[in-house]
Amino acid sequence: MMAMTILDPFCGATRIATMKPGRHFLHIPGPSNVPDRVLRAIDRPTIDHRGPEFRALGREVLTGLRRVFKTAHPVVIFPASGTGAWEAALCNTLSPGDRVLFFDCGFFSGKWEGVAEQLGLRPERIEGDWRAPIRIDALAQRLADDPMKEIRAVAVVHNETSTGVTHPVARVRQALDKAAHPALLMVDAVSSLGSIDYRHDEWSVDVAIAASQKGLMLPPGLSFNALSPKALEARTRAKCPRAYWDWGPQLEANEEGFFPYTPSTNLLYGLREALAMLEEEGLAAVFARHTRLATGARAAFEAWGLEFYGTDPDSRSSVVTAFVMPEGFDGDTLRKTVLERYDLSLGGGLGRLRGRVVRLGHLGSLNEMMLAGALAGIELGLGDLGIPMKASGVAAAVAALRTALAPAHA
Amino acid sequence: MMAMTILDPFCGATRIATMKPGRHFLHIPGPSNVPDRVLRAIDRPTIDHRGPEFRALGREVLTGLRRVFKTAHPVVIFPASGTGAWEAALCNTLSPGDRVLFFDCGFFSGKWEGVAEQLGLRPERIEGDWRAPIRIDALAQRLADDPMKEIRAVAVVHNETSTGVTHPVARVRQALDKAAHPALLMVDAVSSLGSIDYRHDEWSVDVAIAASQKGLMLPPGLSFNALSPKALEARTRAKCPRAYWDWGPQLEANEEGFFPYTPSTNLLYGLREALAMLEEEGLAAVFARHTRLATGARAAFEAWGLEFYGTDPDSRSSVVTAFVMPEGFDGDTLRKTVLERYDLSLGGGLGRLRGRVVRLGHLGSLNEMMLAGALAGIELGLGDLGIPMKASGVAAAVAALRTALAPAHA
Amino acid sequence: MMAMTILDPFCGATRIATMKPGRHFLHIPGPSNVPDRVLRAIDRPTIDHRGPEFRALGREVLTGLRRVFKTAHPVVIFPASGTGAWEAALCNTLSPGDRVLFFDCGFFSGKWEGVAEQLGLRPERIEGDWRAPIRIDALAQRLADDPMKEIRAVAVVHNETSTGVTHPVARVRQALDKAAHPALLMVDAVSSLGSIDYRHDEWSVDVAIAASQKGLMLPPGLSFNALSPKALEARTRAKCPRAYWDWGPQLEANEEGFFPYTPSTNLLYGLREALAMLEEEGLAAVFARHTRLATGARAAFEAWGLEFYGTDPDSRSSVVTAFVMPEGFDGDTLRKTVLERYDLSLGGGLGRLRGRVVRLGHLGSLNEMMLAGALAGIELGLGDLGIPMKASGVAAAVAALRTALAPAHA
Amino acid sequence: MMAMTILDPFCGATRIATMKPGRHFLHIPGPSNVPDRVLRAIDRPTIDHRGPEFRALGREVLTGLRRVFKTAHPVVIFPASGTGAWEAALCNTLSPGDRVLFFDCGFFSGKWEGVAEQLGLRPERIEGDWRAPIRIDALAQRLADDPMKEIRAVAVVHNETSTGVTHPVARVRQALDKAAHPALLMVDAVSSLGSIDYRHDEWSVDVAIAASQKGLMLPPGLSFNALSPKALEARTRAKCPRAYWDWGPQLEANEEGFFPYTPSTNLLYGLREALAMLEEEGLAAVFARHTRLATGARAAFEAWGLEFYGTDPDSRSSVVTAFVMPEGFDGDTLRKTVLERYDLSLGGGLGRLRGRVVRLGHLGSLNEMMLAGALAGIELGLGDLGIPMKASGVAAAVAALRTALAPAHA
Repeated sequence: MMAMTILDPFCGATRIATMKPGRHFLHIPGPSNVPDRVLRAIDRPTIDHRGPEFRALGREVLTGLRRVFKTAHPVVIFPASGTGAWEAALCNTLSPGDRVLFFDCGFFSGKWEGVAEQLGLRPERIEGDWRAPIRIDALAQRLADDPMKEIRAVAVVHNETSTGVTHPVARVRQALDKAAHPALLMVDAVSSLGSIDYRHDEWSVDVAIAASQKGLMLPPGLSFNALSPKALEARTRAKCPRAYWDWGPQLEANEEGFFPYTPSTNLLYGLREALAMLEEEGLAAVFARHTRLATGARAAFEAWGLEFYGTDPDSRSSVVTAFVMPEGFDGDTLRKTVLERYDLSLGGGLGRLRGRVVRLGHLGSLNEMMLAGALAGIELGLGDLGIPMKASGVAAAVAALRTALAPAHA
Repeated sequence: MMAMTILDPFCGATRIATMKPGRHFLHIPGPSNVPDRVLRAIDRPTIDHRGPEFRALGREVLTGLRRVFKTAHPVVIFPASGTGAWEAALCNTLSPGDRVLFFDCGFFSGKWEGVAEQLGLRPERIEGDWRAPIRIDALAQRLADDPMKEIRAVAVVHNETSTGVTHPVARVRQALDKAAHPALLMVDAVSSLGSIDYRHDEWSVDVAIAASQKGLMLPPGLSFNALSPKALEARTRAKCPRAYWDWGPQLEANEEGFFPYTPSTNLLYGLREALAMLEEEGLAAVFARHTRLATGARAAFEAWGLEFYGTDPDSRSSVVTAFVMPEGFDGDTLRKTVLERYDLSLGGGLGRLRGRVVRLGHLGSLNEMMLAGALAGIELGLGDLGIPMKASGVAAAVAALRTALAPAHA
Repeated sequence: MMAMTILDPFCGATRIATMKPGRHFLHIPGPSNVPDRVLRAIDRPTIDHRGPEFRALGREVLTGLRRVFKTAHPVVIFPASGTGAWEAALCNTLSPGDRVLFFDCGFFSGKWEGVAEQLGLRPERIEGDWRAPIRIDALAQRLADDPMKEIRAVAVVHNETSTGVTHPVARVRQALDKAAHPALLMVDAVSSLGSIDYRHDEWSVDVAIAASQKGLMLPPGLSFNALSPKALEARTRAKCPRAYWDWGPQLEANEEGFFPYTPSTNLLYGLREALAMLEEEGLAAVFARHTRLATGARAAFEAWGLEFYGTDPDSRSSVVTAFVMPEGFDGDTLRKTVLERYDLSLGGGLGRLRGRVVRLGHLGSLNEMMLAGALAGIELGLGDLGIPMKASGVAAAVAALRTALAPAHA
Repeated sequence: MMAMTILDPFCGATRIATMKPGRHFLHIPGPSNVPDRVLRAIDRPTIDHRGPEFRALGREVLTGLRRVFKTAHPVVIFPASGTGAWEAALCNTLSPGDRVLFFDCGFFSGKWEGVAEQLGLRPERIEGDWRAPIRIDALAQRLADDPMKEIRAVAVVHNETSTGVTHPVARVRQALDKAAHPALLMVDAVSSLGSIDYRHDEWSVDVAIAASQKGLMLPPGLSFNALSPKALEARTRAKCPRAYWDWGPQLEANEEGFFPYTPSTNLLYGLREALAMLEEEGLAAVFARHTRLATGARAAFEAWGLEFYGTDPDSRSSVVTAFVMPEGFDGDTLRKTVLERYDLSLGGGLGRLRGRVVRLGHLGSLNEMMLAGALAGIELGLGDLGIPMKASGVAAAVAALRTALAPAHA
């Protein structure tokens, strides 16, 4: 869409046209596009959250979520944003003064560390390079330097949407095992769950944090904790005060499909539909699709000659591509341009990356054409700002998608 | 609807018909009926919560909420249930060990007290009769007995949906003023806001707690704190740990119409629509309608000869009527009967009132015909169970509504 | 709802409140209430009407409709109102100048006769009393007086919504058989299909006319012809010009699940959902429910002391109750009153019955509580106008419903 | 989307994934994409079509349509597909045996001619080349050869979606004027209205035919006739039988905002919303956008080296691009491939063009990114089938769009 001055024969006046025709392209790294099926599911009359119809709903979503987390253990649902599930992970398992290890790997890891600080824990940070995967060697060293096992938990962000880097959760697990360290493993799977393969039980994660608005294709408003027996055991000794976030009453009420306080019924309707959609497509196909679309997106940036923020090709995220603005160009100007002219939303650089990094989300309910459309919007916007491009990114993306799709079509 | 055995010419088999034709009548005391306008508003694609379109939305709902609370001070919106807003009220203003006065007046007051306990506060209870309004004299006495002003807050539930009794918030304020006591006044307005006249500034309430699923006619999932300058000042000294619930980052982000973490965008679409509806009807008309419908509901129970749980006629709630089951009859059996046979949801007795009390919600998006329909469902159910009725309640309700409407039609 | 003058603390001004809180009660005899499931089905993106997804949809609705008509023969779907299906029935089977027998039994029968006139046919009318069932004896006499078999078709309205009288289609069939008369039997099942037992094949009806907005619980916009082999054969000789209404291209395209011109795709989504709902409830249960609700409605009118328009108790419709306004009172004033004050829509008297008759629709997606609500609205309106009532109609309805429900609950 | 065999860890089985993730891209030349605003508008409870709320709706859409047709004369709305509006145009103005001039210019023109034939008129065809604009010289010649003025009407399809050629309506008018011929001018504006500049009054068109599912962005199910005083006058003498299609009762009822038989209420809700959207964007901006997007689409086909079906560059449609499949490749195979693999719907060749021509619709609610997405889908599909491409079409489209947008962004 454009703001253009027109002589309008409809109303007979000179006017500025501001209507945005066609669909908005939502390409922030979450909230992701909510499919119509999910929106329509949410648009149903609210029911009694203590009646039999709700009970069936509650049971269905609680069971379905376990399959997405790949866990046989309980999953807790909070009527809250993901930030709340961070807090819940910490306050259910730890006591004031407990030491928790974080990685210096991005904006969201830092925010989570801030929550730990506010709750009276003692967060500690393993330094690192935001553009690279977390350093497992530094972790191993730190664990080795903890003979008293004072580190109570290690907190990892599986996929950092602020940097576009995916971190190796399985290797964190290995490091803990190798050090025979009893610290809990906490994983922020907010932007990986339902998009990037996350394996709760296989990786022996103790608490996972996730939210509705990313791979689960829902509006924001629900968040989750997937637990382990060890996390449940830790809860019995954890002294952080907790009420809303307490897993105890949740698990008790969940047995019947209910919740200890009023749940977000309409979003749960949507969750049921989204889980059905994931089951219909198949989780493996969902992950393969994200990998494929990410390949297409990266090909575009390479063709344009733009620099990826993440320096390690193997760690680049399949849900978001973060790129560095060329010297002399501001990321927020690009975002404003594509939003106003083409109705495309991109993610901005967060915190210290503001203006310098721009992020293209490609997760959730997405296909090849939607991605190509978004890339076309960026290509138009880059041109509008006079940013030099080596070649057409959207053409390169289509070529890369063709290659990526070839085995499936063979 | 009924489960009946039929020979079905449609599919040629004997089968149990289970479809529920027509609309469900949701008459629990919240969640209330969500109007179609609000449901459709929620059923819109999610947008970037950091973009200009969202900014306008955020500003609109933050401003509109103030008008409903009747306050010139900030209102904070949490993506959470009302239970979370209870916690937020406490942890933003108090420090561990602080003494908070509650009233023994119902299930929800007791739950809130439980939250205070879990957060490490020292709740204290003014004894009372659940069937009657809270005792202002006992409050006055307790305040007089607190020369060191150790009581940091007095917590009142404006409308107790568990008992169907509305409590005199203005008189609590007067008692505090008379005692010149500096305790904060906290009011649970969850089931009164948007249904019963609540006056935040006029009553000098310091923190009000409300939620989306009652008078605001939304699905559950949003909750609110309305603040006072005194509450904001208390926050600067309050030592309870807080992260998700912290008002500080909320107020800062709210200045631009944004939120410190991902907001529940789609429910905010609904909130905007609901605020518009309240504005169109007019708050005074909304309150008058609730009063009128409650008059109709009470007339039905009187005609049937059923006993109100609330013993003081002047304190009976205009959003819910709680009644006592006659000796020998179980409330949950009545609820199950009307749900299965007529598709009517009533509220059950909570806690110690289970089975003994049944509650008819009449709040939110409701009119005379909807109320009469619900009463007809109860009348059918009472008859099915052989519960003696003195006269037709639904006829009495219509007669009472006519009288109540007369001035308006004059 | 009421228009009342209020001092509004929300916007600080004296204003007229006009918002209509709660749900509208749509009780005209069609369009009937569209269930949320059907509305949500319609609210899906339109698809290619020549693609494989549409083919499956087309086949499903074409098959499902046969079950509702109780026919093994084809059903044709027009993107048109029922008036169009009247025209289609005539122009596909008859030639200009053909004689068609109608009954003088109501407004809609007269309108259909008018269509025949406009198409150049020679309609002839069997006189009758609108308040009574059609006269089978007069029909038999007329058929006997037609030695040359010049009457090509007999056209009956199964359920006349203008009068609230249901007519005996099976007896028309018997009269034709007895007279060994070859005339086609055409039946307007617009307001009976899906509400009152209609048996296309058993009654050897040649062309049935129906529409979406009554028992099928859809918005208006689709209409139907159910055919017989004899009707199909008649088409090959019929000389009335036809294009849009021609069954030929329809039947040909329908074989593949398609349509000869662009179909009303979104209404077909709704039709699929509505057919599923009828199947879930079971047609027999649907008919029993309409009978039961009609019993309740009639009990109300008897209690009020109002006169039924239909004089034969056994022929009163189970989808609409038509009643005569007491001397000195105008029906449209009553309708205006209940619409403006209570948000209830009733049907007015049509044609010569205008102002004298009022009609309460009770068809489609409806249950006991919805009916009771509508009756309460009427009871309030009657009172407002000072129309004398012998007793409470809504109380009588509840009592009658209890009796009618007793066997099912036994 | 793809059908791929996967080992699904979600359900633990080898399965074929069939879910189509993301949005379907509907690029047939109508029905066009229905915007969410319109779908949500349609998803409202049906109301009484004879009540005051409907009256306001009826008046609003009847007035709004005139602005889109650019006429001061009445517009009639039929609950029917466009085929019905063709019939209405003819039967309201002509008598059996009347001569009507059609152009041999495409599939739809031929279908309309067939309707004339079925109604007993005498259609006559001006021969032409489907790939070129209609021949005005041949028309002039024919008019000159009609001294008795036996030609009662000239029927033109403004935009032939079957060929992708837009025809010069204004020049037809000039030819009639020059010949001082009294024949009525009838224009099929089905796929031009709301997308390509159509000027009813300026061009002195007597009857225009349009439908809901193209530029008006609605689902199919409504069609329109825009009239002229001359057409209304012709109606008084026209002898074709008509009932459903008769303008007379429509115009009479329309005066009050009502309709002579049950209207398609829910689609009218959508029409109101669509008219509002056209007004917000501004008709001139709508046309400019279609022109721009068509430029982008054509650039893609030129880059690929595919042949346009329309041979005259200046007459290529801005709502659909029809292209010829290269020798040895079948159009329906391409359509099936892009539908199954990428969830993209293209239009097939109609009638004698089947398999040889494929059509890309680019009309209605559409923007640059949606078009680019569709072009990417085609580019993938062309590659899958081994169809040689000279260069990337999607890259060329982006470049062409940039150029086309430049003045607006200057």
